[in-house]
Amino acid sequence: MRILIAGGAGMLGRKLADRLARDGVIGGTPIAQLVLADVVPPVAPAGAAFPVETRVADLSQPGVATALVEGRPDVVFQLAAVVSGEAEADFEKGYRINLDGMRLLLEAIRSVGDGYRPRVVFTSSIAVFGAPFPDRIGDEFHLTPLTSYGTQKAIGELLLCDYTRRGIVDGVGIRLPTICVRPGAPNKAASGFFSSIIREPLNGAEAVLPVADDVRHPLASPRSAVANLVHAAGMDSALLGDRRCLTMPGLSVTVAEQIAGLREVAGDAAADMIRREPDETVARIVAGWPRAFDTARADALGFRCESRFTEIIDVYVADELGGVPAGAAR
Amino acid sequence: MRILIAGGAGMLGRKLADRLARDGVIGGTPIAQLVLADVVPPVAPAGAAFPVETRVADLSQPGVATALVEGRPDVVFQLAAVVSGEAEADFEKGYRINLDGMRLLLEAIRSVGDGYRPRVVFTSSIAVFGAPFPDRIGDEFHLTPLTSYGTQKAIGELLLCDYTRRGIVDGVGIRLPTICVRPGAPNKAASGFFSSIIREPLNGAEAVLPVADDVRHPLASPRSAVANLVHAAGMDSALLGDRRCLTMPGLSVTVAEQIAGLREVAGDAAADMIRREPDETVARIVAGWPRAFDTARADALGFRCESRFTEIIDVYVADELGGVPAGAAR
Repeated sequence: MRILIAGGAGMLGRKLADRLARDGVIGGTPIAQLVLADVVPPVAPAGAAFPVETRVADLSQPGVATALVEGRPDVVFQLAAVVSGEAEADFEKGYRINLDGMRLLLEAIRSVGDGYRPRVVFTSSIAVFGAPFPDRIGDEFHLTPLTSYGTQKAIGELLLCDYTRRGIVDGVGIRLPTICVRPGAPNKAASGFFSSIIREPLNGAEAVLPVADDVRHPLASPRSAVANLVHAAGMDSALLGDRRCLTMPGLSVTVAEQIAGLREVAGDAAADMIRREPDETVARIVAGWPRAFDTARADALGFRCESRFTEIIDVYVADELGGVPAGAAR
Repeated sequence: MRILIAGGAGMLGRKLADRLARDGVIGGTPIAQLVLADVVPPVAPAGAAFPVETRVADLSQPGVATALVEGRPDVVFQLAAVVSGEAEADFEKGYRINLDGMRLLLEAIRSVGDGYRPRVVFTSSIAVFGAPFPDRIGDEFHLTPLTSYGTQKAIGELLLCDYTRRGIVDGVGIRLPTICVRPGAPNKAASGFFSSIIREPLNGAEAVLPVADDVRHPLASPRSAVANLVHAAGMDSALLGDRRCLTMPGLSVTVAEQIAGLREVAGDAAADMIRREPDETVARIVAGWPRAFDTARADALGFRCESRFTEIIDVYVADELGGVPAGAAR
């Protein structure tokens, strides 16, 4: 089984590659080759028992997608995207990367022909939903994005479904909740504080909280996001019927519950490193975001997430800090 | 007020141009100029009190949309599209005309800049919805197209909303029900029989009915579709908030009710000219179509349709047959 990860240098792409290197299989089938592609040079995972190739490639440029699918990967993970804040700040770049890139990838697959029909796992986003919505958003809630990023992801979902229906790809779209705790430096996503109020204190640094403590939002760890990507690649896609896109489970917690979890895992000193600095702009954006989902479809199909927020912190401490919070004494 | 009709040579485009020529105003504002554009030469309406320009233009070709919006029309009717059957039969053409054409039009408007922000009235379709769905589909039912045409229209809706939110256009998308009675020769739409079983008998010819008499579907006359296009152009779009696309009212009738209406208007001889010739392919397609909509939003905003099927027949007889059914004696 040959695998392509488009967006393989991003946070999820790297973690997905690491996981595939460890597992050596997807859905029981041995991995024969992995190609990581991204606009910046991807890093091959350590210890893979199969050949790994890295390529610098911008899917939105003519011919690039065609070259990427020449080797007929059996599974294509389409993670290549610019994030919400950047897609909002740079209209043209957002449409070029998030819409044209997706479309050119699907078109490249179509042009192979000859019965080639790879599993395409597309990372969509809960940003396809926009307020007003109910407290718990069901699997059949309509697509009402209120950002250009959400619009581009919703269009990607529609394309994925149509190309699947036409027999060109075997698509599975998964709408990831906000990933927490994101390692490393903040990206341009407006949701960055959900991670930084945990990550910075665990690293001994102050964090800024721009919204109220009662803000509620669904979160999942990078580890469960990766597990769900792998599950999407190996699952029986016939179970999805024509509705190929699914909201992934996320743990719906308030900021107050996040902070309580941090206090439980890393003590008062860590929790006290969060400085409240209300930001009306961020608060207004976040007010338009989902609070919780009813993910019955994904649950029934075997997709999973954490059930307590401390588990999400534990994943960060285990995977990024070698098991020890750096900043705060218990 | 300057008006552009993209798709001005199509059935609705022609009727819209005729109506604008008769009215001379939209929403109380006098029309100063009308441009009709289409891939085939449009025909200027008779009796317009304002200048009418016709242009052969394919929106999906580079630069064409830019030239069309150079004159800064205040209202752009975006009716240019290939129909469902053709978009399904010719994958590339469907995406080129229905998706690229729409996007290039929006991009051309964006590139004008300088505060230019026209009202864009986009004809979407109930094909954005796909089975399974409830007997009456509400305004918040999710987009689940099961055809490439429906996919392209759904993407057009998403683009219209995002370009509106970004202040580039002032968009109103209206999802037209199936138009009945369509004049002239059948087009490639699978819904053609809803019109032909009325039109052909009224013109003294036999019609073929490929589905069962209990098939139920929402219909509206070309006249009410045009009235709703004009209403969308003149309405206060702020009432729409961020959800710029609306399902238009349609009269939900069964084929049996259509035939009863034909019998009432044109007699038994007309109704007897319908030959039942079940077609499994058409029946299967139609089984995936909506049966009725709850159009509370559009109703409250002043959009209208016929309330009895005989009214729909009467519109055809009045507008296309000079008031007299040609084929059948009462």
